[in-house]
Amino acid sequence: MQVLVNATLATMADESAGYGLIDGAALVIDGDRIIWAGAEAQLPHRDAPRRDLGGRLVTPGLVDCHTHVVFGGDRAQEFEMRLEGASYEEIARAGGGILSSVRATREADEAALLDAALRRVDHLIAEGVTTIEIKSGYGLDVETELKMLRTARRIGESRPVHVATTWLAAHALPPECKDDRAGYLRDVVIRGMDRAHAEGLIDAVDGFCEGIAFSRDEMAAVFDHAAGLGLPVKLHAEQLSDLGGAAMAAEHGALSADHLEYLGADGIAAMAASGTVAVLLPGAFYTLRETQLPPVQALRDAGVPIALATDANPGTSPLTSILLTMNMGATLFRLTPAECLAGVTRHAARALGLADRGTITAGARADLAIWDVRHPAELSYRIGFNPLHARVFGGEFV
Amino acid sequence: MQVLVNATLATMADESAGYGLIDGAALVIDGDRIIWAGAEAQLPHRDAPRRDLGGRLVTPGLVDCHTHVVFGGDRAQEFEMRLEGASYEEIARAGGGILSSVRATREADEAALLDAALRRVDHLIAEGVTTIEIKSGYGLDVETELKMLRTARRIGESRPVHVATTWLAAHALPPECKDDRAGYLRDVVIRGMDRAHAEGLIDAVDGFCEGIAFSRDEMAAVFDHAAGLGLPVKLHAEQLSDLGGAAMAAEHGALSADHLEYLGADGIAAMAASGTVAVLLPGAFYTLRETQLPPVQALRDAGVPIALATDANPGTSPLTSILLTMNMGATLFRLTPAECLAGVTRHAARALGLADRGTITAGARADLAIWDVRHPAELSYRIGFNPLHARVFGGEFV
Ligand SMILES: [Zn+2]
Ligand SMILES: [Zn+2]
Repeated sequence: MQVLVNATLATMADESAGYGLIDGAALVIDGDRIIWAGAEAQLPHRDAPRRDLGGRLVTPGLVDCHTHVVFGGDRAQEFEMRLEGASYEEIARAGGGILSSVRATREADEAALLDAALRRVDHLIAEGVTTIEIKSGYGLDVETELKMLRTARRIGESRPVHVATTWLAAHALPPECKDDRAGYLRDVVIRGMDRAHAEGLIDAVDGFCEGIAFSRDEMAAVFDHAAGLGLPVKLHAEQLSDLGGAAMAAEHGALSADHLEYLGADGIAAMAASGTVAVLLPGAFYTLRETQLPPVQALRDAGVPIALATDANPGTSPLTSILLTMNMGATLFRLTPAECLAGVTRHAARALGLADRGTITAGARADLAIWDVRHPAELSYRIGFNPLHARVFGGEFV
Repeated sequence: MQVLVNATLATMADESAGYGLIDGAALVIDGDRIIWAGAEAQLPHRDAPRRDLGGRLVTPGLVDCHTHVVFGGDRAQEFEMRLEGASYEEIARAGGGILSSVRATREADEAALLDAALRRVDHLIAEGVTTIEIKSGYGLDVETELKMLRTARRIGESRPVHVATTWLAAHALPPECKDDRAGYLRDVVIRGMDRAHAEGLIDAVDGFCEGIAFSRDEMAAVFDHAAGLGLPVKLHAEQLSDLGGAAMAAEHGALSADHLEYLGADGIAAMAASGTVAVLLPGAFYTLRETQLPPVQALRDAGVPIALATDANPGTSPLTSILLTMNMGATLFRLTPAECLAGVTRHAARALGLADRGTITAGARADLAIWDVRHPAELSYRIGFNPLHARVFGGEFV
């Protein structure tokens, strides 16, 4: 047992209470769990060893609930070509776009994928992240999709961070299947899901529902199969147009629908009814210079929980800073700093179906971030600054 | 003497040659100077101790040529109030805005200012910055302005970084002078400049030329006084409207005109004629959700050198990442990655009148940044990621 004293807690415990700030607070940890949190004056366990936090702010460990950090290669050359005036067609002819990541991911061995992904994950960890979701989706064949998720699991074994894995074979149609959508969905998305699930590689199933990817009906069939395996689902939805993907996902009890710039009233109502989290991804909004804002006020009004994530990926969001994601959530999407912090703690945990984290409450995992700031608004306010003092993962300072 | 081998150099030596990339390159350093750079096969000094850089990319040390990193307090509370729906008037009544920074800076002692500023500067240093410009301008009385620049000089003594100081008493009119503009300009801006210059605290003189600050004629008088002292000038110009500030500054031979969203054709022509650098500040553009883009293509066409800087300040750009500034320059302003790198090396040095840095050429200061990347475009491409491997300041690895 250990006792942390002289802390300011942002417990994030209660939907309606903003940060749930407690000044002059203490925290009791037993093993990997928080067993007590509150005002130091009420501290019940006075005999355990104490650590003085010098008045620092303590938040739940941060949760990045939507990433694609496992991939081969990078897309810096394509980024440069576009800024030098190349058209999308010229870039495609030069081998750019998502298929360049698919090619590089297929070619990379697991050790190389792990090495490259760990550099990205280490940046997130350095900013207080203790849980990270990682998707497949740059393999688009069964073996490479499995390789990606095995790599994701190895990240969780290599670093003091919890990894939640997501099966995203329905990310794009690979060139070899372009005339056989049904075959791809059957042989890779569905049969691959069975194999990956049998290997214990899947925590959730995801897809990209968009004109350039998969339809609402195609994704519904994938979700039905996931349900048969007892796997929760989530969806990239309404990023570029409103196909009703979020509503379909909500009807399947999805944990989250993600992106949502073009989400309409029906989708919002369906998400509110099912308790589906809206995961907003400002890094992609920023990188694509999107001007259509997600319907933040309508989501608020409907009581849909809002999460924020990096969407770390080589094409549309080469972003590996969860703090900058919070600033973008505030600056670009006009979320309040309290909503931004809930978006990377309580609501992000919920978007992963992880009920035991994202708040500082008795019974929760002792995943914490300790900050050299006076007030939690500072975490969203600064841009490109990391005030992390220490991180606690499962009760250990790491 | 020391020899660095097995490097990829982005020399940034030549306006027309992009990065000036040399693969399989070597570099010879004598004391604090580069004395030779080129292909390793042509390396002339074969007997000095060698350091193998493992093929890594070497760029000039980065130069942040426009910052306000010395200030008291922060403005996180105001940031939060605004996002929670408070009006500018309510924020002003709650003590917000630039005057809250003035108040906190006047109240802080030099040790506290230094402490707070070093945290920001350390973030810049960690990203390969070797020269940083720091402005006064949150004192708005002579003693506090002097205190700010003494703090700036102490930063240069406390860290392996070169600090260029700028006198910016003409930043805003303090409340105690609101009915006596002429008195403020005479007693604080001009007489303070004399005192600060006598103390060796000024490398350049700056002002904020805008409807809410000082007029073109007021700034011209300040610049005439600076010229009498032999001090170079620069100007915050055309950020919110076109007052012709950049053209006036160019006529005074200004090193740079900064911000420039509303710069017109006359200003561009004047800057091109005088060789004045256009310093673009995407952090302020981003934070203010500005939609008026600076005239990048017209600046290019006119041959005006473009620099990029953080504008690190507590109100409109709480940004302390030069790499993110490069990404914003590319993403928001559509600069190419090569232009972004020139903007924080060769052109940024020129914006400070420092001819001995910002390129990797014989005779230049041995200020270098060594990166774990394969291609310099990666420095602009990634968001919230720091691939710095090592930094060299005046020939020393620090
Ligand atoms: Zn995604
Ligand atoms: Zn400025």
